[in-house]
Amino acid sequence: MAKIKSKTKKIEKEEIKIKVKTPKNPIDGFFTAQNIAVIGAAREPNKIGHIILRNLMANKTVYPVNPNADEIMRLKCYKSVVEIEDKIDLAIIAVKSDLVPQVVSDCGKKRIARVVIVSSGFEEMGKNDLQRKLKEILDKYKITVIGPNCLGIYDSYNELDGIFLPKQKVKRPEQGGISFISQSGALGATLLDSAAERKYGISKFISYGNAINLNECDFLEYLAEDEKTKVICMYIEQVRDGKRFIETAKKVAKIKPIVVFKGGVTEQGSEATLSHTGSLAGDAQVYQGIFEQTGMIQVEMLEDLFSTAKLFEKILDGGYRINGKKIQVVTNGGGYGIISTDNVIKNEMEMADPSSVTKKTLGKNLPMINIKNPIDLLGDTTNERYKLVLSSLLNDNNVDMILVVLLYQTPFLTEDIVEVLGEIDDLKKKPIVVVTSRSSYGYTNITEKLADKGVVCFEFPESACRVMGKVLKKVVK
Amino acid sequence: MAKIKSKTKKIEKEEIKIKVKTPKNPIDGFFTAQNIAVIGAAREPNKIGHIILRNLMANKTVYPVNPNADEIMRLKCYKSVVEIEDKIDLAIIAVKSDLVPQVVSDCGKKRIARVVIVSSGFEEMGKNDLQRKLKEILDKYKITVIGPNCLGIYDSYNELDGIFLPKQKVKRPEQGGISFISQSGALGATLLDSAAERKYGISKFISYGNAINLNECDFLEYLAEDEKTKVICMYIEQVRDGKRFIETAKKVAKIKPIVVFKGGVTEQGSEATLSHTGSLAGDAQVYQGIFEQTGMIQVEMLEDLFSTAKLFEKILDGGYRINGKKIQVVTNGGGYGIISTDNVIKNEMEMADPSSVTKKTLGKNLPMINIKNPIDLLGDTTNERYKLVLSSLLNDNNVDMILVVLLYQTPFLTEDIVEVLGEIDDLKKKPIVVVTSRSSYGYTNITEKLADKGVVCFEFPESACRVMGKVLKKVVK
Repeated sequence: MAKIKSKTKKIEKEEIKIKVKTPKNPIDGFFTAQNIAVIGAAREPNKIGHIILRNLMANKTVYPVNPNADEIMRLKCYKSVVEIEDKIDLAIIAVKSDLVPQVVSDCGKKRIARVVIVSSGFEEMGKNDLQRKLKEILDKYKITVIGPNCLGIYDSYNELDGIFLPKQKVKRPEQGGISFISQSGALGATLLDSAAERKYGISKFISYGNAINLNECDFLEYLAEDEKTKVICMYIEQVRDGKRFIETAKKVAKIKPIVVFKGGVTEQGSEATLSHTGSLAGDAQVYQGIFEQTGMIQVEMLEDLFSTAKLFEKILDGGYRINGKKIQVVTNGGGYGIISTDNVIKNEMEMADPSSVTKKTLGKNLPMINIKNPIDLLGDTTNERYKLVLSSLLNDNNVDMILVVLLYQTPFLTEDIVEVLGEIDDLKKKPIVVVTSRSSYGYTNITEKLADKGVVCFEFPESACRVMGKVLKKVVK
Repeated sequence: MAKIKSKTKKIEKEEIKIKVKTPKNPIDGFFTAQNIAVIGAAREPNKIGHIILRNLMANKTVYPVNPNADEIMRLKCYKSVVEIEDKIDLAIIAVKSDLVPQVVSDCGKKRIARVVIVSSGFEEMGKNDLQRKLKEILDKYKITVIGPNCLGIYDSYNELDGIFLPKQKVKRPEQGGISFISQSGALGATLLDSAAERKYGISKFISYGNAINLNECDFLEYLAEDEKTKVICMYIEQVRDGKRFIETAKKVAKIKPIVVFKGGVTEQGSEATLSHTGSLAGDAQVYQGIFEQTGMIQVEMLEDLFSTAKLFEKILDGGYRINGKKIQVVTNGGGYGIISTDNVIKNEMEMADPSSVTKKTLGKNLPMINIKNPIDLLGDTTNERYKLVLSSLLNDNNVDMILVVLLYQTPFLTEDIVEVLGEIDDLKKKPIVVVTSRSSYGYTNITEKLADKGVVCFEFPESACRVMGKVLKKVVK
C-alpha cells in the first residue's frame, strides 16, 4: 500500500511539473529557427530570393534551394528541399505562385513544420483556385504557414532577418519592446524603417499577407506570451473570423497594450483592400466598436501607430504610477504653449494646476516667469531654466504628466539641453513627452540625440497630445 | 477760352497720371529700408542687440546705438539715434521695455518714420500703463510701428534680415512666393526654419507681437499688393478689430489665398493667449465662421500651414486648370493606397476613374498591374513603371490631380526616381503631390531632392489629403 501511495505521489508531482512548464507556442519556432531553407534562392542580387538569402546568412545556417544552380554565394545549392541532409526548422518560399504548391509538397515530404511564403499571386490577384489548392497541401502535411503575399518576419533578439528587402533600403530597428503585426508588406517595411530611424526598438515583426493559415489572432496569442514583447502594434485591413478576433483581442489586451491602425475605413478604401490582401475590409464603425469593446487602442493617424506604442512601452518600463490626466505644459514659445493647451483639451486630458509649493519655489528662483499652465520660459530661456522648472514639477502631485516644448531655434539653448532632459527623464518620477520642431539644426541632431536617450519626441503638439490622450485613456482608470 | 481749355486738359492728364501711379503702401518702407539703426546694439555675441546687428550688417547700412559703447563690430556706435548724421529709414529697438518710450521719442525727434520694437515686457506682462505711454509717443510723432514683443521682419528679395535669432539656429528660407504673418515670435521662427529645411521659398516674414500700431489687417492689405507674395500664411491668436478684419480679409482673399492657423481654439487655450500677446482669443466658432465667410482657408493642424500654402503657390505658378476633385492614387504599397483612398474620401474629394484609353494603353504595357484606383505598382516596381503610368494619367481627362505614393523602401527603385517625378511634375499638365515616407535612406535624400525639384512632398497620406482637400475646396468652383 505504501509503495502504491508513493508511486501516486510521484505521478502527481510529475503532472504538476508538466503543468508548470508551459509548452512553447508553436509560432515561436519561426523565430528560433536556426536551419533555414530558402526556396527560390537566386544568384541575381536584385531578386527577392537573393536578398532573403543574404539577409539570413549573417546569423543563420542557410540552405539555398534552386533546381538551376549548384552554388549561390558560395553555399551549396539544392534542387529540392528533400535533398537537404540536415533537419530544416523553417523554409522561406520565394518562387512564382504557380510553383508554390509543388515546393510546399516537398516541404511536407521533408517534414518541415514551418513555412513562410512571400510569393504573391494568389487570392489578392483573383487566383482563388490556386490558393485553395495550396491550402489543401498545407492541411495534408500539417504545415504551419505565414503568408502568402507577405514580406516575411524579423526578430531583433533572435537575430532572424527574414525580410526580403535589402538593408540599404530598410534599416533594421534595434532591440526593443514593440512587436508589429502587419497585414500589408510594404507598409510594414516602411514603418519598420521609419521606426529604426526614430530609434524605436522592435522585438518582432510579422508581415502575414493573405493569412492562409496563421492569422492576426494566432500572432496576438503568441505575442501575448512572448517575454520580449511589451506592446503590440497592428496594421489590419480586415479580420476573417470576427468572433475569434474579439475573444482573442479581449484576452490579449488585458495582458499587453494593443495599438491598432485600420486601413479601409471608408467604403472606397474598403473596396481597395479586396485586391490587396484578398478580402473586403467591412464596416469601419463595426471595427471601431470591436476595438473599443476588446480594449484595443485604435489610432486614427498612421504616424501615431508606433509613437503610441513607444509611449506605452516607456510608461510600462518606467513603472510610473499615473493617477490622472493632468498635463503640465512647459514651453519656450508662447504660440506652441497655446496650441499644446488646445490639444490637451481636445484629446480629453486636463491642464494641471501647479501646486502652491511649486509656484512659490519657482517664483523665487525665476521671477520673470509666470508659474501657471502653460509655463512659458520665454524666448531667452536657457537650459538651466528648463532644469529648474522641470525638477520642481517632478515633485508636484498636481501634475500627472509633463509636455515639454523645446524650440531649439531660440538663441540661448545649447546642445546640452539633451543632457538636461535626459537626466530629468531618467529619474522616472513622471513621464515626460517632448515636442521639438523640425529645424535646420535640431531635426537631425536634437531629436535624434533625445531619442538616443530614450526621450519620446514629437514634431508637433497635435501629434504629441493625440498620443498622450490615447495612452492615458488606457492607463488611467 | 482755348487757353483755359488746354490748361484744364493738362490738369486732367496730370490727375490721371497720379491716379495710375499707385502710391506704395507705407509698410513697404520697412522692407526696402537701407539705412537702419539698431537701438540697443550690444557687443556680447549672445545678446539680441548683437544678433540683430550682425544679421543686418551683411546687406544693409547699419547704425548701432548704445550709450555705453564707442564701437561695435568695427562700426561707429551712437549714444542716441539723434546723433546719427545720415537719414535713417528704419530703427529696430531691442532695449529693456522701460527704456522703450525714451528711445522711441528720440526716433521721433530724428524723424524716423518706421520702427520695429522687438523688446517684450508690455501688455503681455500686464504692463498696460507702459504700453499706453508708448502708444502716446508713437501717436505724437506719427511713427509706424511693428511690435512690441515681436521677433522682427525678414524679406528674402530685399535681403533684409531683421530677425533676432542667429542663422545657425534659424535657417533663412530661399526666395519664394509665400509670405508669413505671425502673431507669435518663437512659433514664427520655428516655422520659418522648418520651411527653409523643407525648401519652401518665402518672400516676407512679419512677426508683429502685441500689434500696438500695425496689425494683421495692415499686413494683409500690404501683402495683397506685394508683387512677390503669391500666397499669404497667418498664425493668429486674436484680432482686435473684428469688423475691419472681416472687411480686409474678404477683400484680400479675393486677390490671394490666405491660409490661416488659429491658436487658442479651446477655452483654456484662449485663456493662455492673454499672457502671450496681451488679449483673449475669443470663441473658436466665431473665428471659424469669419474664416469661412471671408474666404480664408483655415487649417486645423500646424504642420499643414506652410504645406497648404506651398501647394497653392505651386498650382497658381503652374497655371493649372483644375475642374474637379477627382484624385488618382498611384502607389507601390497596397496599404498606403488604401489609406490614401480613405483620406481622399474623408477630405471631401473623389476617387477618379481612369478612362478606358488609359486602361487600354497601360493594360497593354503593364499586364501585371490592375489599372483602376488606386493603381498599385506592386512592391517590385521600377522607376520605369512609375513613368509609364504617370505619363498616361497626365493625359486622362477623368483625373484632376494625382497622389503619388513612393515608398523608397521597395527594392528596385533607384534614386533616379527623383528625375522621373521631377520631369512629370515639370510638364505642369496636372498637379501631382507625393507621399514619401521617412526612411533611413529616403528621408534625408529622396524627400530633399524631390523638394529641390519643386515637387510637393508629404510624409503621410493623411497630411497630403488634408492639404489637397483644403486647396481643391478653394480652387475648384
